[in-house]
Amino acid sequence: MSAAVEFTERLIACESVTPARGAVFDCMQDMLEPLGFEIHRFIAGEVPDGPVENLLAIRRGPKGTRHFAFAGHVDVVPPGQGWSGEAFTPEIRGELLYGRGAVDMKGAIAAMVAAVADIPADAGTLSFIITGDEEGPAIYGTRALIDLIRQRGDVPDLCLVGEPTSVNRLGDMMKIGRRGSVNIFLETTGVQGHVAYPHLADNPAPRLVAMLAELDALKLDEGTDWFQPSNLEITEMEIGNPAHNVIPGKAKARISIRFNDLHSGAELGERVMEIARKHGGTANPVISGEPFLTPPGEFSEMIARAVEAETGIVPEASTSGGTSDARFLKDLCPVIEFGLVNATMHKCDEAVALPDLEALTRIYRRVVQAALSS
Amino acid sequence: MSAAVEFTERLIACESVTPARGAVFDCMQDMLEPLGFEIHRFIAGEVPDGPVENLLAIRRGPKGTRHFAFAGHVDVVPPGQGWSGEAFTPEIRGELLYGRGAVDMKGAIAAMVAAVADIPADAGTLSFIITGDEEGPAIYGTRALIDLIRQRGDVPDLCLVGEPTSVNRLGDMMKIGRRGSVNIFLETTGVQGHVAYPHLADNPAPRLVAMLAELDALKLDEGTDWFQPSNLEITEMEIGNPAHNVIPGKAKARISIRFNDLHSGAELGERVMEIARKHGGTANPVISGEPFLTPPGEFSEMIARAVEAETGIVPEASTSGGTSDARFLKDLCPVIEFGLVNATMHKCDEAVALPDLEALTRIYRRVVQAALSS
Repeated sequence: MSAAVEFTERLIACESVTPARGAVFDCMQDMLEPLGFEIHRFIAGEVPDGPVENLLAIRRGPKGTRHFAFAGHVDVVPPGQGWSGEAFTPEIRGELLYGRGAVDMKGAIAAMVAAVADIPADAGTLSFIITGDEEGPAIYGTRALIDLIRQRGDVPDLCLVGEPTSVNRLGDMMKIGRRGSVNIFLETTGVQGHVAYPHLADNPAPRLVAMLAELDALKLDEGTDWFQPSNLEITEMEIGNPAHNVIPGKAKARISIRFNDLHSGAELGERVMEIARKHGGTANPVISGEPFLTPPGEFSEMIARAVEAETGIVPEASTSGGTSDARFLKDLCPVIEFGLVNATMHKCDEAVALPDLEALTRIYRRVVQAALSS
Repeated sequence: MSAAVEFTERLIACESVTPARGAVFDCMQDMLEPLGFEIHRFIAGEVPDGPVENLLAIRRGPKGTRHFAFAGHVDVVPPGQGWSGEAFTPEIRGELLYGRGAVDMKGAIAAMVAAVADIPADAGTLSFIITGDEEGPAIYGTRALIDLIRQRGDVPDLCLVGEPTSVNRLGDMMKIGRRGSVNIFLETTGVQGHVAYPHLADNPAPRLVAMLAELDALKLDEGTDWFQPSNLEITEMEIGNPAHNVIPGKAKARISIRFNDLHSGAELGERVMEIARKHGGTANPVISGEPFLTPPGEFSEMIARAVEAETGIVPEASTSGGTSDARFLKDLCPVIEFGLVNATMHKCDEAVALPDLEALTRIYRRVVQAALSS
């Protein structure tokens, strides 16, 4: 059995529903220490968004050499119902290895570790930026690791995140950017009353409807060379008035905007607040993440060449999909995401193809070699 | 103690939270039988909107004389919290008689009984149309009584409903009509999905927002000589989607229309369904009641004269406010509502002024005398 497969099995066997602590980090430490990595583990945060465990592993190369980082998470989403086997008992059937986290993203973490195993120590500096909270609130995860990295002065030159970015087959897509995300809570207030006496009441619902109609009609942009157009969705509307003869006193809604790098969360929040005010209401924006973009260039070409060499296909440089911890890591250095096929992620019977684990290990090894010699 | 006060106390002492059965009807029977009334009591309906008790009392005059009916209910709304005394223990303090139902409408029922006590039997036919379910669903109450009346051929010429129509002082308002009421349940359906992948989803919320905006902008009419303009209120909006990153698959709302006699519930339902369809949604109308109007004329003048003679004021002929059982009784004959001051109805410490009970008795007696000799 190859190292990548063995490591994946060991990681799956450590039950690590988000937020993860303990055993799965012991496992990381056991895999990395023999390879000469210095391990820094710490627990951050408090209830309700913590505590969370994080691990920074670093193996320094000679002074003046490049520093390449792998980043990822060892927490997983809950297994849910309907597995044909046990979610935390790794099982190989045919060419597939089953278990929660197989593709998102314990398989990729295992491939990273296997990839660096035969990189000579004098080739450069390598680090692993590993969090136990990417699937959860992510308040005390990668952000806390970035604080530690800055504090220690161990900022990498390039960073690859192992999220499962491939769609139909390994290598068909990498992410060079992600849209930002902001949720905005809208509210209008009036005066409750009886529907038979509307002159004594002030219904806030029409103002909310007008506000939502104006927001829904907004065209935020036309997209950019690298991003699709920013998009606004109404995700909730709520009055909560069971009484048929009562005019409500309050009406609420929530919108979600996924936005490209033409915007910031703060600017969009301001814009929506302005519209809300115009309709006599309020808007409370909560920014989940700002967008990031590592424009196509040296780093993306380095990854594309490694992928093509191992799979024969050139990955699409995409910015689609949800957010990831790359939204934080972008503050350190250029960051790109590349990993396994995401078809089974967050589903029951999550599984990784064994040949993909081997190929990903070889791709990651090529990237490390290229990055350290660049 | 006058008969009206004594009768009110007896009725209050019969706990009769809607739907009422039993004791409070025994009390009605005990009061009316000695006055020569034939009593027809029956229980109608099944769970959940029944069973309900109703009472039809009739005292026939000589052939060819007029038939005047009093209508009302002996059920009451629940007492709720905060009474200074016991809700079902009648108590006189100063000039006020306290107890649930004092004004809505056991006091008025007592005044009706006291008013007919000294009307000679040969003056004409008198009846009492009394239900135990006006405050509840009203499915098996006055409607069942109307069926019985039709079946027996005892249809009155005029009907006075004893709802508490007075606002600031006894006699300032009668109701010659009531608006109709229809609640309409709106829904749009789409395809649920992740906000990061809007092209794979179909958000039903914007269609509902556009539908509500169009409905809210409707001007149904300008009002009539006797009715205020029909009015539409948005009373509920609901998606019920706690997940910030999920595009919902369904969006719902509810509107309430109070409408005058330029419309019917069915016509308004059709009109809203048409608008809903245009926006790719559905509308399900539930008609609570059609409007009624007894245009100002002989009957309203008869009541106005009686009120003025006893109170010195001329009652406003209003069509404002909620619905009442007059919406059913209008199918029998001209119907008008007149009764006590409604300031404390449905509240704790519901109370009636003793002089109002006496004055109402005299007003009702004048109305009966005028109606039977008209």
